[in-house]
Amino acid sequence: MLVEGVHRRTIWLADDGHTVEVLDQTALPREVRVVRLGSCEDAARAIETMIVRGAPLIGVSAAYGLALALRDDPSDAGLARAHARLGRTRPTAVNLHWALDRARAHLAPMHASERAAAAYALAAVMADEDVDVCSRIGEHGATALREVLARRGGSGPLRVLTHCNAGWLATVDWGTALAPVYKLHDAGVPIHVWVDETRPRNQGYLTAWELAQHGVPATLIVDNAGGHYLQRGEVDVCIVGSDRTTRIGDVCNKIGTYLKALAAHDARVPFYAAVPSSTIDFSIERGDAIPIEERSASEVTDLPFAKVKNPAFDVTPARLVTGIVTERGVAPATAAGLAALFPERA
Amino acid sequence: MLVEGVHRRTIWLADDGHTVEVLDQTALPREVRVVRLGSCEDAARAIETMIVRGAPLIGVSAAYGLALALRDDPSDAGLARAHARLGRTRPTAVNLHWALDRARAHLAPMHASERAAAAYALAAVMADEDVDVCSRIGEHGATALREVLARRGGSGPLRVLTHCNAGWLATVDWGTALAPVYKLHDAGVPIHVWVDETRPRNQGYLTAWELAQHGVPATLIVDNAGGHYLQRGEVDVCIVGSDRTTRIGDVCNKIGTYLKALAAHDARVPFYAAVPSSTIDFSIERGDAIPIEERSASEVTDLPFAKVKNPAFDVTPARLVTGIVTERGVAPATAAGLAALFPERA
Repeated sequence: MLVEGVHRRTIWLADDGHTVEVLDQTALPREVRVVRLGSCEDAARAIETMIVRGAPLIGVSAAYGLALALRDDPSDAGLARAHARLGRTRPTAVNLHWALDRARAHLAPMHASERAAAAYALAAVMADEDVDVCSRIGEHGATALREVLARRGGSGPLRVLTHCNAGWLATVDWGTALAPVYKLHDAGVPIHVWVDETRPRNQGYLTAWELAQHGVPATLIVDNAGGHYLQRGEVDVCIVGSDRTTRIGDVCNKIGTYLKALAAHDARVPFYAAVPSSTIDFSIERGDAIPIEERSASEVTDLPFAKVKNPAFDVTPARLVTGIVTERGVAPATAAGLAALFPERA
Repeated sequence: MLVEGVHRRTIWLADDGHTVEVLDQTALPREVRVVRLGSCEDAARAIETMIVRGAPLIGVSAAYGLALALRDDPSDAGLARAHARLGRTRPTAVNLHWALDRARAHLAPMHASERAAAAYALAAVMADEDVDVCSRIGEHGATALREVLARRGGSGPLRVLTHCNAGWLATVDWGTALAPVYKLHDAGVPIHVWVDETRPRNQGYLTAWELAQHGVPATLIVDNAGGHYLQRGEVDVCIVGSDRTTRIGDVCNKIGTYLKALAAHDARVPFYAAVPSSTIDFSIERGDAIPIEERSASEVTDLPFAKVKNPAFDVTPARLVTGIVTERGVAPATAAGLAALFPERA
């Protein structure tokens, strides 16, 4: 999407043809800085330190990480080592493993000398696929959001609440939860986004920044405030991303998502999760089986007397989810609903 | 309660007999600093800038502010001016007005020459009454919490979640929501407190600090995380304060309280509000009639592109509240329940 009026992606190949460049999301929104990834270890650290973040972008970054690794060591051992190293970077996002396993399955049968070039080509395909998937999520989600607006009637913008950053910065382009917002805005539909700050890492600042860069009206609020606005009838619809969605529609997303789903339910406001199908884990039934990443206490505070716990994700039970917006359409948050859209995987 | 092993209150009269001294809550927890209030304007600004905060402490501070004003100008006009100035400091806390109206009713019939001394005496009485009320809230709340522990059975500490700071720092001593915690801890009952950070002003740091100073085990979490711990069965009971409670038991408290009440309800965990009866507003039925203070956007962020809204309170509907803990006992959150405890006011 647009940065200072110019269309950008979050990850691309540098002019030298092998170095990978990414927007540094730890520097945003204060500074637009590009980081160069020259090795698999660079890519792994970029994922761990959240220079790149967001489940779809993590997947593509890992694929490029494999390509960087194979440029140095294309042997079977090198492939296995890089696959293991990149797989250890973040525990919750399922499409990290989806991307790594897909790339390994593609590359392992090849002769070592062919692997690096093939890995780069595959990573580029996966990046383009991600853009296409997100664009289609945007179209399907926009249809759902237009229906919300039609049901509400009246004048004024469609009032959307989102949590964390599931915008284009979390993907290669378009985003997941924000893709429908961009589609509607580009189509001239008035829209306003309530943006949760999303402590402790304040990814809401990324959301507020990318919406502002693209010209979409938005208001930043603390995570505590969303319930109040839902209760007062100032939110028409909630839409969030998901790091992993189970086969029955339980949605694992950034910590605090569950609280907003409860408040939406209490206010009878629809609550959507927008997810590329690569983040649906058909092997898991219930969300409490998903490992929840515990991150450093220093993300919360450095006060010496304070013992801190810092879980990074929570699970929103399917019963609180109105629909799962995927690249194939909007499924009810049920096993049957997801299976009907993805019969080959269910 | 204890600060570095010494018993302190939040507000007291200086050795000169007329200056009022308070703990500066904008400096805590990083520094224990005392601020001297020499005039009504000092007191009003201390309330506005949250050097003193918490509904009960605001009431006592306003009473001392009136005394400081009457020392300078004990005329009817002086009393009216001070009453108006102090009444404008914070819009949500009802016992600010309760304290000011009580003091004015007491002082207005007097000869001007008697007013200052009487105002100081009344403020001291109100401070002592607040300590007594909070201590009794502590006893009644401790009984309710012991029942929660007995029902849960099993071993290990009672696991309490609280939001904002309704500890002794929000009162003269003991606190409201934390008074039962201190009573149980002092009685040797094992207890652990999950402390919400409470963005945007991070009053959870005050809670974590005062609990640590008194030796009560506690863990700080971001506001987003409480739902997750409730959902996972790691919270036995929630207890919060209230800035204003309606006659049917709707609880207006720090923004974000409502989200925790929803999560407690979803997890079938009891949710108590601990309130001095001075914060019950029998003139209001429903919480949506309570004015919600909108505070400065700069409390949230100084990012230049971000439009910000910053409501400071929200309303938890009575249906989500297990009981209202008052100095006379624990009432169901209903009009009949509160009226039975306070028949003279209902």
